[in-house]
Amino acid sequence: MSFLQKLNERYAAKAMNGKVVPQEAVDNILEAIRLAPTSSGLQPFEVFVITNPEVKAEIRKIAWNQPQVTDCSHLLVFAAWDHYTADRINYMFDLTNEIRGFKNEGWENYRQMLLGAYPNQDPEVSFAHAARQTYIALMAAMTQAVYEGVDSTPMEGFDNAALDKILGLGEKNLRSTALLPLGYRDAEKDWLVNLVKVRKPMDKLVTTIK
Amino acid sequence: MSFLQKLNERYAAKAMNGKVVPQEAVDNILEAIRLAPTSSGLQPFEVFVITNPEVKAEIRKIAWNQPQVTDCSHLLVFAAWDHYTADRINYMFDLTNEIRGFKNEGWENYRQMLLGAYPNQDPEVSFAHAARQTYIALMAAMTQAVYEGVDSTPMEGFDNAALDKILGLGEKNLRSTALLPLGYRDAEKDWLVNLVKVRKPMDKLVTTIK
Repeated sequence: MSFLQKLNERYAAKAMNGKVVPQEAVDNILEAIRLAPTSSGLQPFEVFVITNPEVKAEIRKIAWNQPQVTDCSHLLVFAAWDHYTADRINYMFDLTNEIRGFKNEGWENYRQMLLGAYPNQDPEVSFAHAARQTYIALMAAMTQAVYEGVDSTPMEGFDNAALDKILGLGEKNLRSTALLPLGYRDAEKDWLVNLVKVRKPMDKLVTTIK
Repeated sequence: MSFLQKLNERYAAKAMNGKVVPQEAVDNILEAIRLAPTSSGLQPFEVFVITNPEVKAEIRKIAWNQPQVTDCSHLLVFAAWDHYTADRINYMFDLTNEIRGFKNEGWENYRQMLLGAYPNQDPEVSFAHAARQTYIALMAAMTQAVYEGVDSTPMEGFDNAALDKILGLGEKNLRSTALLPLGYRDAEKDWLVNLVKVRKPMDKLVTTIK
C-alpha cells in the first residue's frame, strides 16, 4: 500500500487494548527512528522505550491521565539533547570517519564550523534546534508503525519537567519533547476511530511561486 | 520496497541536475505534507513551492550559496505560524465541524482550552511549537519524495529573516523553518552520493525500561 494511503489510514488512537506489540515490529520502528535524517546528521536525541507498568502509571499521572500511556504496549519517549556540546558533535564526526574509513577535509572544516557555533549558543536556542529533529524521528516512527499494523498516538500533552524527573533525563543532559505510545486500538472505546480525517484544503496550505 | 529500505536509500542530495519533477510527483509530495499529523490537528504552517528562477537565485544568495537551491526542480519552503491566534485555531475547529457534520461537546471544550492557552503564550514559545510541527511534515515530504524516485535535501542553512523578507512571510504572520529542494541528483558532482550512510548504533540511541 502506498505511503499516501498509509497516511490516510493512520490516526492517533485514543484508546488502546493492552495487546503486546511483537518485538520485531518494535525493533523496526526503532530502526526507522535510527535511520531518520537529522540536521548535520547529529541525531541530537535519545529514545526511551518503556514497558514497565509502574513507570507507565507514573507517567500517566503527569500526562493528563491519557489512557494510552498505560494501555499501550511500548511507550516511546523522545528526548532531545539539552545542548549541543563539543563532545556530542565530535562523537558523530569521529563515528563518521571511523565508518567511512577516511578523513575528508571539507567534512573536517564543517566539524570546526559546528564546534565554533553550536556549543556557544544560548542553551534554549540549542535545545529548540535539537527538539525539532525529534519530530522528524517521530514521523519516521509513526510511519513504520502504520506499515507494521501498529497504532500509535503522538502526544505533547504532558508535564515535560515532571517526565524528565521520572526518567532522570536531566542527569543525561536530555529534555523530553514527545511521547509515542505503540499498541493496538480499542475500537469500542475510541471516540476518534470512526471519525473522518480532517485536513486543510490544499489552497489554504500551499502557495506556488512560478 | 519497504519504508526501512527507502530510509536507507534516501540521502540529502548535494548536487542536482535541473531536471524537472513531474507535476504528479510534486502533487503527491504536497499531499503527504497535507496529510501529515500535527499537534491538535492544527496544521500550523504553510508551504511555498518555488519554481521561479529569479526567486530561487535570490534565495540561494542567503542560503550559503548551496547549488541545490537553484538546481532543484521545485524548492519547498516550510513556514510556521508565528503565533497561534484565536482565528487560526477557530478555523480548524470550524472546518472539523463542517467536514464531520456535527458539533461534539468534548471537542468544543478542547477548542476552548486551546483558545484559553495558545493565544496568550509568549510568541516565541508559540512559534517554537508550530515550528516543530513543520518537521513532521518535512519528514512526510522526504518520504513521499523517495517513493516517487525524487531526490530531496532538507536544509536549515539559510538566513531565516532574509528569506522571510524575500517571500513576504512577515505580512502573512509566518516564519520560515526549513527548505526542501526537490529534484534529481547530479551524481558526478555530488560528493555524498557514494558515501556510506552513518547512524549511531542502536545502543547509543535507545534505552529500554522494563
